[in-house]
Amino acid sequence: MKPIVFALPGNETFAQQLATALEADTGETTIRNFPDGETYVRVLTDVSGREVILVCTLDHPDGKLLPLYFLSHTLKSLGAKCTCIVAPYLAYMRQDKVFHPGEGITSAYFAKLISGFAERLFTIDPHLHRRSSMAEIYSVPCMVLHASTLISDYIRDHIGNPLLIGPDSESEQWVSQVAKDANAPYIVLEKVRKGDTEVNVTVPQVEKYKDHTPVLVDDIISTARTMIETVNHLKKAGMKPPVCIGVHAVFAGNAYQELQNAGVDSIITCNTIAHASNALDVTALMAASLNKIFLS
Amino acid sequence: MKPIVFALPGNETFAQQLATALEADTGETTIRNFPDGETYVRVLTDVSGREVILVCTLDHPDGKLLPLYFLSHTLKSLGAKCTCIVAPYLAYMRQDKVFHPGEGITSAYFAKLISGFAERLFTIDPHLHRRSSMAEIYSVPCMVLHASTLISDYIRDHIGNPLLIGPDSESEQWVSQVAKDANAPYIVLEKVRKGDTEVNVTVPQVEKYKDHTPVLVDDIISTARTMIETVNHLKKAGMKPPVCIGVHAVFAGNAYQELQNAGVDSIITCNTIAHASNALDVTALMAASLNKIFLS
Repeated sequence: MKPIVFALPGNETFAQQLATALEADTGETTIRNFPDGETYVRVLTDVSGREVILVCTLDHPDGKLLPLYFLSHTLKSLGAKCTCIVAPYLAYMRQDKVFHPGEGITSAYFAKLISGFAERLFTIDPHLHRRSSMAEIYSVPCMVLHASTLISDYIRDHIGNPLLIGPDSESEQWVSQVAKDANAPYIVLEKVRKGDTEVNVTVPQVEKYKDHTPVLVDDIISTARTMIETVNHLKKAGMKPPVCIGVHAVFAGNAYQELQNAGVDSIITCNTIAHASNALDVTALMAASLNKIFLS
Repeated sequence: MKPIVFALPGNETFAQQLATALEADTGETTIRNFPDGETYVRVLTDVSGREVILVCTLDHPDGKLLPLYFLSHTLKSLGAKCTCIVAPYLAYMRQDKVFHPGEGITSAYFAKLISGFAERLFTIDPHLHRRSSMAEIYSVPCMVLHASTLISDYIRDHIGNPLLIGPDSESEQWVSQVAKDANAPYIVLEKVRKGDTEVNVTVPQVEKYKDHTPVLVDDIISTARTMIETVNHLKKAGMKPPVCIGVHAVFAGNAYQELQNAGVDSIITCNTIAHASNALDVTALMAASLNKIFLS
């Protein structure tokens, strides 16, 4: 039997698209805040004996965790037999080691928490810099999907004479694959991060590519400091206005406006986080992966 | 050895008072948000082999849970040997049964979560209406303290000829004890709740107490609907402006201003949640209970 797709608040559109692609039913809930700020959860769909999918992208995660946790437990109390979380964007992947004494590894703590109330997790391009696999921190099975083909297809179909520019050496493998699939050259920034929002970058050998359209690619666009800094470098080097492509449109504070104002050609993201810049739809990618599990 | 007292953001004052009362050290941390909304936690005090107390009152709990969870795990990773949570106000105690089909029991789910990362919990007057003990839902030891003596002492020392008025029959046992200790009569409202914010009340036999000062007492003042409704009834019945006393100053939205504007003599709360109305200090109560555990 098909799973039932539930949306956490804010995820209704993506959940509906996913249910349509899966030809599955959507579940109904009431999820709201009591006047004192506590979360109220009620499930209005019969889930007895059914597998359920909880759609909840996890940008700005702190306020989302308890509603997700409560909905998962409530569904199980009502007889749902498997709780699967679809988090197109997964939080707490960046603090994956002790950078300074006294820090914890929040990526592992968060993984432990999620693994405690979900039987399975689906996500897209989690920020796996220092880890090779989600299984190092998640004790439940994780399906990791990649938006790279969507991005390379977009570049090939929409951008003439592209030059891909990756944010750092850690991302080189990913950028080189996107570039290969887009049939385009690539270079990688040299980058020194100074705190949460300050970044210094240099763009090596960019003068070789004067006639190309720069395409800045990254997994997450958060403060957009690296991209803005790079746009400024490219401008000084006399390059064309770049296209900025990110998988995840986190856009902290005014980052989106600031990146727009930096003089870009366009900003393109996937709909892993709902945002005005979404132009690449991950629904079919996610649905195909879910179908493999739930129809096998 | 004395425990080390850590404050979660917003709990610095109470944590410092508690540490002073315990003659214990306070721990230093950096707890802040990354630009993308994720929480960063760093412990700056050596906790190796030490017992630690995490002070975090839990009104508006959804955004507080992950920082508390991360701090607890980080402290353990640094060798702290026991993590004890001091939550003067404890959240998610009200959804303690399935009122309507499809609901979950969030009080039990929340208890399970807290019990998963704390070894011990101290709290004051949790809203235990349908449960006789915290042990029904918390699997870690819970020390439940009561502010009733602070309240009865205040009434006896500051209010001439008081008449205590309790919010409902469920609270009668608590109100009768406070009244007895304050050497005052009491009555209990008859109350019909209509949704989260609407309440109808009647004040039985109030005409017998025309020369008394009404003292409305409750454990939590949240929307203050019951108190405001009662103040209006008392006004119509020709009673003096009442004193309103609550243990926990949750005060959802504009509830505090609305209660003030209803025509009360004064509003008095305990400092379990920091608020302008705090007049009763629970520090000594909490410190005495902590001392019993940590010095025994």
